[in-house]
Amino acid sequence: MKNLLCAAAVVGGLMTALPAAAQFAKAEDAIKYRKSAFNVMAVHFGRIGAMVQGKVPFDPKVAAADADIALITARLPYTAFGEGTDKGETRAKPEVWTENDKFKAAALKMQEEMGKLNAAAKSGNLDTIKAAFGPVGQACKQCHDNFRKDH
Amino acid sequence: MKNLLCAAAVVGGLMTALPAAAQFAKAEDAIKYRKSAFNVMAVHFGRIGAMVQGKVPFDPKVAAADADIALITARLPYTAFGEGTDKGETRAKPEVWTENDKFKAAALKMQEEMGKLNAAAKSGNLDTIKAAFGPVGQACKQCHDNFRKDH
Repeated sequence: MKNLLCAAAVVGGLMTALPAAAQFAKAEDAIKYRKSAFNVMAVHFGRIGAMVQGKVPFDPKVAAADADIALITARLPYTAFGEGTDKGETRAKPEVWTENDKFKAAALKMQEEMGKLNAAAKSGNLDTIKAAFGPVGQACKQCHDNFRKDH
Repeated sequence: MKNLLCAAAVVGGLMTALPAAAQFAKAEDAIKYRKSAFNVMAVHFGRIGAMVQGKVPFDPKVAAADADIALITARLPYTAFGEGTDKGETRAKPEVWTENDKFKAAALKMQEEMGKLNAAAKSGNLDTIKAAFGPVGQACKQCHDNFRKDH
């Protein structure tokens, strides 16, 4: 998967969202989509975590590939929190909509940190990756604490 | 999302899979992951379909961005059909494993057609995209018919 992506282009394009409005026919489709995107992101982010924590051997190419997928998917879910998607099979708290500016800022923070992790992964240096990994996890946690129900 | 990806690099890297073995701690994690990846792929492929079918106005940039996401996610699910992932919340037929060569060929066919659709999307020409869209849908359907339970 080396060279799958051009990282600079990825990071540069990060904040240019796809048009979010009216993308989903049904609210449940939007909910399923955002959960799917978060899941793919979490899996690849988690694989970097396993290397950072020494649970699996560090492979720079694999880490870089995982970081690419994590970064690409990090921007997708936020197109799917439209009106009417607050009910159903979702753990999203009402604050996603009632404090939407804060939610968007938290999303942006995560994407920024994920971008930094992506750049770190391109370095091929495990210590550099370790330093960038923690802030992503913190950004995940902060958003979960504020905007996601425990169960 | 313009320039998010470098399409040639994406297509070139398509067949270089991430290491598939032992990527998931639990079978249910693998199943959730592959369903998530398929879902994200289907959403973005479907958005191109909506333009092809005239249901939404054609926007070349949006189509190209959707094609990038669809292509990237098209290669992810097949890392998650390992041993022991044939049971649980999955519609995968036993043939995924008993006729694994055919399954892999069907997956590859879909990825190839998705690569062609990606190239077509980069042209910005709706007729070119239309011509490349159908074969992807056929590849999806053929794999579903042979390897996915109806319900």
